[in-house]
Amino acid sequence: MLPILGLYSHTRTVLSFQKRANMVDALAPQPKLLATKPRRLSAAEQVLLDYMTQIAPLSDAEINTIFELINIRSHPRGKVLLREGQALNICYFVLQGCVRQYYLVDGVEKTTSFFTEGQPVSISGFPFENKPSKSFLVCNEDCILIEGRPEDERNFFEQLPRMETLNRMGVEKELQKSQEVLAEYIISSPEERYLNLMKTRPDLLDRVPQYQLASYLGVTPESLSRIRRRIMMK
Amino acid sequence: MLPILGLYSHTRTVLSFQKRANMVDALAPQPKLLATKPRRLSAAEQVLLDYMTQIAPLSDAEINTIFELINIRSHPRGKVLLREGQALNICYFVLQGCVRQYYLVDGVEKTTSFFTEGQPVSISGFPFENKPSKSFLVCNEDCILIEGRPEDERNFFEQLPRMETLNRMGVEKELQKSQEVLAEYIISSPEERYLNLMKTRPDLLDRVPQYQLASYLGVTPESLSRIRRRIMMK
Repeated sequence: MLPILGLYSHTRTVLSFQKRANMVDALAPQPKLLATKPRRLSAAEQVLLDYMTQIAPLSDAEINTIFELINIRSHPRGKVLLREGQALNICYFVLQGCVRQYYLVDGVEKTTSFFTEGQPVSISGFPFENKPSKSFLVCNEDCILIEGRPEDERNFFEQLPRMETLNRMGVEKELQKSQEVLAEYIISSPEERYLNLMKTRPDLLDRVPQYQLASYLGVTPESLSRIRRRIMMK
Repeated sequence: MLPILGLYSHTRTVLSFQKRANMVDALAPQPKLLATKPRRLSAAEQVLLDYMTQIAPLSDAEINTIFELINIRSHPRGKVLLREGQALNICYFVLQGCVRQYYLVDGVEKTTSFFTEGQPVSISGFPFENKPSKSFLVCNEDCILIEGRPEDERNFFEQLPRMETLNRMGVEKELQKSQEVLAEYIISSPEERYLNLMKTRPDLLDRVPQYQLASYLGVTPESLSRIRRRIMMK
């Protein structure tokens, strides 16, 4: 399954798009021509476009087809997307909001990831594995997410074969980032991890509750307060 | 660049293979037919085949073409494959041996990964980024590695388009593993990390020097000794 896209959505949408175009105005440009007219994107949609064009430029026609194929859905803050023990059968990409991954260890939440705008929710246990998840996924804020199911993947790549290359490159980038986060975690003290977050993801420090941030950095909330005080005094 | 394969090697090899076949025996089956005859694999080559067929079955012809396209090279123990500051312009896949990634922090080596048989050496800074590496890669043992350069990638996928899908799926699996290692690292104590390694990568405990293992687990060598003693006494 595709962590980068989470996009492998329904042909249904394309068909209804074409049907609609034909029904509303038979004299309108053919769907194919119509598809080359650039589509107006919402701020949330723009997040995906920015993510993808970082990898390679896209034609207007490709952009339109992508947005016809994907499924975008809103979820309220607090919505649990995945529970421990459930198989993950949807993958997500964050257009707006923050999705948090945590493990329940002896009844205590241990936060291991925050996924924010422009990030695929890449966690272990993608659908093609069909394994019970060891962790939870929850919307830490109101979220707008792209949702993708594995059965839609083939259809997406059939319609947009070039996306397979882009997707591969996107996943490779995510793998590199993941390896770098792991390496930085291993080589750093909690204070260094905090300083690193200030550089790489400053938004997290404000938008995430302190006890979650502490857990993510591997310290108690009290230690995190001390770290923050030390840093502010420097 | 492709962490899974590190395979995107030289057309040169294919050409010379075909030339050789024609020169040695003009009556031999045509290269295309020849390619459908299963090739005998060395133990090292079998490691790659096992890795790939975990993702999807391969035809004999595909297997032969893969092994004609890839570059396999041996390196002695101690060989530095990448230094801090250098751009990584080759990617590797381990057929035999152990490649270690480490950072130099205040003059001290901090080990962040061990890549062994059947693992792509997936670290941050793949060639298409062309960024100076923050870490080192060194052969911890005598190694047999597949080496791939980015310029060979396109050629590989042109010759074996289906491999792009397999490769994407392989990279996704690696991403999941990487995220899981990160999550386990965050939620575990050093002792739990050691117990986890005993389960998931028991070979490492014997083949890796204790000071490197300690560094990888985020403890001093003395703490690692204490952890081992505690575990043995249980």
